[in-house]
Amino acid sequence: MLTKADYADARCRAAAMIRESGICFTQEELGKVEVADFGLSRLDVEGAQILTLVATDRIAVKIIALFPRQTLPEHWHPRVGEDPGKEETVRVVSGIVRIYVPGDDSMKEGFVPAGKEDVYTMRCELILQPGEQMTLQPGTKHWFQAGETGTVMFSFSTVARDVLDGFTDPEIKRMTEIQEA
Amino acid sequence: MLTKADYADARCRAAAMIRESGICFTQEELGKVEVADFGLSRLDVEGAQILTLVATDRIAVKIIALFPRQTLPEHWHPRVGEDPGKEETVRVVSGIVRIYVPGDDSMKEGFVPAGKEDVYTMRCELILQPGEQMTLQPGTKHWFQAGETGTVMFSFSTVARDVLDGFTDPEIKRMTEIQEA
Repeated sequence: MLTKADYADARCRAAAMIRESGICFTQEELGKVEVADFGLSRLDVEGAQILTLVATDRIAVKIIALFPRQTLPEHWHPRVGEDPGKEETVRVVSGIVRIYVPGDDSMKEGFVPAGKEDVYTMRCELILQPGEQMTLQPGTKHWFQAGETGTVMFSFSTVARDVLDGFTDPEIKRMTEIQEA
Repeated sequence: MLTKADYADARCRAAAMIRESGICFTQEELGKVEVADFGLSRLDVEGAQILTLVATDRIAVKIIALFPRQTLPEHWHPRVGEDPGKEETVRVVSGIVRIYVPGDDSMKEGFVPAGKEDVYTMRCELILQPGEQMTLQPGTKHWFQAGETGTVMFSFSTVARDVLDGFTDPEIKRMTEIQEA
């Protein structure tokens, strides 16, 4: 649950980050930045700000803005009927992103949010710089974490069905609730 | 047919345009800009320069750089087996692009390359500015033309099978041939 003021503040900060990253967007898009607190109500630690550029029934293109040291919780994109699940390529535009995927524990630069050791199970650390990208196959558990200056990155993918994503943390609710004043 | 020198020159000019557009890319990608003359050997009039960022069997992301007033010939993305054809969203990063699609003739800003009236049949003109985008459904005939300063745009799409694209101009060969010295 976020207050309206918190939501508006996060949207504004994210829009500024996207603008500063050099990505060109319209005034109309500016108002469409979504703030996701994943139902955890502590946006500066766990959350993401997302501007969806394309969302058809075949592909999706999103800009994901993460505040400094903000963590996008561990999740995966499951099979849905005939769709084997979302295939996603993330590509950094500004800042660095740390990505945690299956593999041996190599965590060095990043950190698991305090008290959340049980729900961040992927510990193989990859760090992407601006202009670098990686493709995550459907079903792959992963989580993202911004560096000290925040991150702006593209997510290029097959069809996105966010509400069907799986999350390791049982406390998570994908849809952000906004507290009425 | 392009000479090696012409190809290298076009690649270099396109890479500079992409860099100036603010899109961040790696040194490795820089060397992968493809130059397409569509077998017409007159790149400054008809052609395109393409940097493929993502090409899986499900999606494609490309950067298309067009030189000033360069025209990317009329084409469409046909059905291939169970695939209804490539769905493509183009999004301008720098410059303007004129897009010609089915509909009433509204051509005003752009032009058909001289002597090519028969093979540029779409005349409904749409002009996109930086930050603007449009989605082309599979099978839709379309062609692109850069404005006076050239164009850099993203193409976000379902799987690309360029060699299976249909072209109105029977002279076109999709694969560029490079003349050995």
